[in-house]
This record gives sequence, structure tokens and C-alpha cells, in this order.
Amino acid sequence: MTTEPISDSRPYSPGLKGVVAGETSLAFIDGDKGRLLYRGYPIGDLVEQGTYAQVAELLWTGEWSDQAHLACAALDRSVIEVLRQLPANANAMDALRTGVSAWGAISAVKYPPTVDQARALTAAAPSILAAFARLRDGHEPIEPDPSLDLAAGFLYQLSGERPDAASAKGLEAYFIVGAEHGFNASTFTARVITSTQSDMASAVGGAIGALKGPAHGGAPTEVVNQLHEMGSVDQAERWIRNTLDRKERLMGFGHRVYRAYDPRAAALRKVAEGLSSVSEWLKMAVAVEEIALRVLHEYKPDYPIMTNVEYYAAAVLQGVGLPPNLFPATFALARHAGWTAHCLEQAKADILIRPDVRYVGPAERSLPGVAAAR
Amino acid sequence: MTTEPISDSRPYSPGLKGVVAGETSLAFIDGDKGRLLYRGYPIGDLVEQGTYAQVAELLWTGEWSDQAHLACAALDRSVIEVLRQLPANANAMDALRTGVSAWGAISAVKYPPTVDQARALTAAAPSILAAFARLRDGHEPIEPDPSLDLAAGFLYQLSGERPDAASAKGLEAYFIVGAEHGFNASTFTARVITSTQSDMASAVGGAIGALKGPAHGGAPTEVVNQLHEMGSVDQAERWIRNTLDRKERLMGFGHRVYRAYDPRAAALRKVAEGLSSVSEWLKMAVAVEEIALRVLHEYKPDYPIMTNVEYYAAAVLQGVGLPPNLFPATFALARHAGWTAHCLEQAKADILIRPDVRYVGPAERSLPGVAAAR
Repeated sequence: MTTEPISDSRPYSPGLKGVVAGETSLAFIDGDKGRLLYRGYPIGDLVEQGTYAQVAELLWTGEWSDQAHLACAALDRSVIEVLRQLPANANAMDALRTGVSAWGAISAVKYPPTVDQARALTAAAPSILAAFARLRDGHEPIEPDPSLDLAAGFLYQLSGERPDAASAKGLEAYFIVGAEHGFNASTFTARVITSTQSDMASAVGGAIGALKGPAHGGAPTEVVNQLHEMGSVDQAERWIRNTLDRKERLMGFGHRVYRAYDPRAAALRKVAEGLSSVSEWLKMAVAVEEIALRVLHEYKPDYPIMTNVEYYAAAVLQGVGLPPNLFPATFALARHAGWTAHCLEQAKADILIRPDVRYVGPAERSLPGVAAAR
Repeated sequence: MTTEPISDSRPYSPGLKGVVAGETSLAFIDGDKGRLLYRGYPIGDLVEQGTYAQVAELLWTGEWSDQAHLACAALDRSVIEVLRQLPANANAMDALRTGVSAWGAISAVKYPPTVDQARALTAAAPSILAAFARLRDGHEPIEPDPSLDLAAGFLYQLSGERPDAASAKGLEAYFIVGAEHGFNASTFTARVITSTQSDMASAVGGAIGALKGPAHGGAPTEVVNQLHEMGSVDQAERWIRNTLDRKERLMGFGHRVYRAYDPRAAALRKVAEGLSSVSEWLKMAVAVEEIALRVLHEYKPDYPIMTNVEYYAAAVLQGVGLPPNLFPATFALARHAGWTAHCLEQAKADILIRPDVRYVGPAERSLPGVAAAR
């Protein structure tokens, strides 16, 4: 028996910050210049000129296709019955994770991941979330309309009504800006799981679980709450100063990577301006943004804090009529294209992701009673 | 528009090999000496003197308790109804992952993780797997017997019969050696998910997904198949040489970390010797092991390859009457103590695990049609 302390003095990278854990061709993020590219194409151009189906195909295959179409998928009856078992007050992320897991068990998706699997899962996820949302409200799920694109089809499956053009375009833009964003904790989770040669539903289920955490998925509903609390533009400045004086965070501002204006926020603001249902709310949001940026600059002159994607995402999601408790899971739907693209990329790299850990526990010792017995 | 290639030359750590991604007090693994300690206690002592309940409490709380008891939990009816929706030929890991996810949705477990949550989830998982196994065979699930320990209780819920003492002890030992093993891909997945401040069911569901991959969870049934293929001890040497000549892997030998004899294999071999139901099979396994080690040494004299845990795990799992298609999911049940202990440890560390990625994709470019239109 060795009883000296176990010394493990290898250098430790807390949170793996700055450690390059993989290679990708999917997204390039330039925080200083406020650039986000999917396979080289600027996010602003993609939102203006493309559809989510085109963006998803681009991420999966690397090719830009004029013919891309992706509609919500009809669900196997068993998946709906699984969702029916969940309580009405279940967290929507828990429901989506459970539905995706059941979908994987029923479809028996196998490693290696394929583009067809990515299409099928990305198309099933909105149907899963919509079915849960209807069931919890006491309604039966609605069969998807194959003529609608994914975002519009999701809204249709939620409400039973075909969305107006502005809402469809608004949510489509949200899906495009949410589709992919390099290595974040959920995408990294999907890659670690894929690296064991496990299947795509396992990987995406894990990613949904990671996105559920507020340290990653954020709190998109809080932007809405914040504006409600302010009450009006007149009271915004005092509210913001009080918040910052209490060392609390202003929601919708600041990002881990972006020092310049988040290009996704810019694209979404433009889209939100087309949504008549949020016009009053949006006017206030634009006015409050100006005040917030001015006050933030005054409080932290050396550290630029800019508007982030959540600020205008809240406007769009509210504008298309989503209840705030579906905001995080709707973000997860959008991110399916990126998660599944990363599964494909990781499987191609085919290397197990398996870091080390540093031991900081007790030295070898005997169980109480064992030493005496010897 | 910037059109020059995007150059990202930061050093890349493929698979994070050798990168220390966290700190732990749970397991110390000394591959050279064949040592495995849980919080300082050698695995051999724990198997001989302890129960899985004691080991789990040790991992969760750091304390060794003489009173520890952990029985399988009764499941909420809704979890059973979820499992009933899965096809009879579903992968058992997919079923366990789906059941754990539904359990999380129904229990509404919240961050931060607690020892009570760890107890509840570790106690629910065997009931979930047993319920699925019975439903797929056309039988109704069996209510747990609270007087039985977790491993024995799992066997009871599978068959409806209380296991004999040797089987109960055999599976208990398997659960103990499988409880924890530092940072592997599934444990790391659980920690990444917890690091976002997500809940324990999300973390464990992701871990199950990662363990499903053969590059991590291995192929425990293949040890059984291998001995079947050999047919007898007389033919073992020729079979082994043919396998190695074809550059194929001999299952049950070699480990990423252990150069010395895997201490878990040693503990399980001892236990397997007490299982009368595998005595013939075990005699053959012991004889084949000796031949295999001799031939492996001849083929790779400079690189010690020793027996790993899977070799005798197969004997124990077969000996207690488990069907091979439940082997991987039974491993997952055992690992619940470790996964949930890592959730607790990660939440205490409270740091987001979020590595970087190196961009190797195309330079910034215009969408087809966009450049021309400008």
C-alpha cells in the first residue's frame, strides 16, 4: 500500500478555454469585426437571400442549392404517444430531448451519421416540439403540411393556422442565424458523443441537454421581461443604471466572442421591423438599445459591450406569436442543422475526444476495518 | 468583403489527448501499476468488503457509510408508458436513454445537482432497463423489492425471481468495478452538459448516448462470441494467431491506460469463480487467457497487452443470466454512480467547459447570384 499523497501536477486548462479541440469548415466567427460566415458566406447575405433549407444543405453538404426544400416530418405514432405521457408543465427542452431520444430509438439510426439522417432529424424536431406544445394545451397534434418550409411548418403545427408571410420570414431568419455557431458547449457535446461512434440521435439529445443550461442557452425570455419591467422608454435609463449599479447583468448585451455588433442581431433587427405584430414593442426595443449602449459605454469605456443576438431574437420570437416558454426549445430546433452538420464532420475526422483529468483526491488508504483485520 | 484565405494556425490537440480538462477527487487510475482507487480506496478492497450502495455514497459524499442501502426505485407510471411505446427490437441503450430523459422531464430535476437526485436517478435506471426488457418480451414490469440491493433488485425486476446469493454478489461486484473510471468520453459528456448549469438527467442522458458508441463502451458481447468461435481450448491458440495475423483485435485484451493487469479484471475473475452457472465457460476463459497473454507477448514483446475488465465482465454478466444485448446498458447502470458524482463535482467547480475550434474552411465569398446583383 502506497500512502504518500498522490501528486498530479500536469497543467490544467480550466473550462478548456483557448484549447483547440477540433477542426471545422462550417462556421467562421470573427468577434472583432462582427463577422459570421457559414462555409464562407456572410450571415447577412444568407438571411437576405437564402432559406433555412438552403443553409442546412450548405452546412451538411458544402453545396449551395437553389432547389433545397425541407418541410416538417410526420411523426411515427409512437413518438406522439411518448410525448403524451409527459406532464403539461414539463420543461419544453426536456420534452424535445425525450422526443428526439424516442425518435432515435424508433428509427434505429446508426453510426456513421448521414446527410439523410440529418435531414430526417432536423425535419422531425419541429414536429416533436409542436406536438408537445399542443398536447400540453389539451389539443391533438396536427399533421405537417409538406408544402410549407420548416419554420412556417412549425408555426402551422403549433396553431393549426398557416402563418402570414412576415411571420414565416421572421422565424425563417431566426432559424438561419441560429443554425450554427462553431464550438459551443452543446455542439461540443454532440461532437464528443459522435466521437465514440454513437448515433446522431444520441448526439443531438446530449446537445439539447447542454443547451438547456442557462450558462450556454442563455435566457432569451429575460429580454422580454426586462422591457416589461422598464415599462417605458422614459424610465429605461434609470432602470438600466440601477441594474448596472447593483452589478447585475443587462440581458441582450455582451457576448463571449463578439466585440463588434453581433451580425445576427443586425440581421434579425431588420427582419423584426417587418413584423407588424411587434411594432410598438420593437420601437421601444430600438430606443432602449440606444440608451443601453450609451450607458454601457459610460460604465465600461475600455470594454466594448454590444447588442447580442438574443436582444432581437426575443422581438422576432414574440412577434411570430411563440410563448416565451418555447423560446429555448425553438433555438434548439434552429441549431439542429449545425449540430447534425458537426456530427457529419466529427465522424469524418473519426477521432475519440477524450481529455485527461487531474487527480486532487486523497492518497491511497485502507477501508475502515480492513487495515485492522489484516 | 475579405477574400483572402482565413488562416487559423493555433495549435490543435486532436481528441484532447493529454489535455487536462478538469480536476477530480473521485478516481485515481495508475495504469503502470494496475491501481484503481475510488477516493483513495483500492478497487479490490471495495469489491471484497463493500456494497455498491456504499461505493455510490462514497463517490457522492466522500464518506464511507456502514448503513448505506440503495434499492431499485418504483417508476412513475408515465415512464413505463413511455417505454411501452418503444419497439421490441429497440437498442437497449436507446431505451435506457429515452427512459432517463422521460424520468427527468417528469421529475423536473433542476440544477444544481444534489446527492438526493443522484440517489433517485441511480435507483430509477435499473427499473427503467428492467421494465423495457420485460415489455419487449411481452411481460408486464415488476414492482421493485425494496429489501434487495440495487444489483439483486435489477435481476429480480428482470426475471421475477430473487437471484441466488452468488449471482447477487457477482452482479454487485460488476456494478462496483463499473461505477467510476475518471474522465472517459461519457463522463466527460456529463460534465460538459452540467457545466452549462443543465440538470442531472440531461447530463446522464448525454452520457448514455456517449457510452453507446463502441469506441467508448466497447463490445462486451464480443468476448462471449470470441470464445464461442474458438470452440475449445485446443483450438484457441490457432484461432488467436489467425486473428492477430489478420491484424484484427483480440477482444478483452489491451486498454488505453492499463499496462499492468487491469485490477477490475482481477476482482471480477475472483467473483466469477463463485458462479456455478459459468464454471465450464469460466474454466475455458481462464485457460484461453493464459494462451492469449503468451501469444500476445510473442507478437508484441515491447508493448505489454494485458487482460482488461471486459474479459471477466463477460463471464459475470453471462453467469448471472443476462442476455448479451443487455450487457452495454447494464454497464451504463453501474456507471450511474460515477456519472452523477461527476455532475456534483462539476457543479461545485462551476466553470463552463467550452473549448475552441480551428477553422479550416473556405475564405469569405459571395452567394451565387449576389455578387452579380451588386
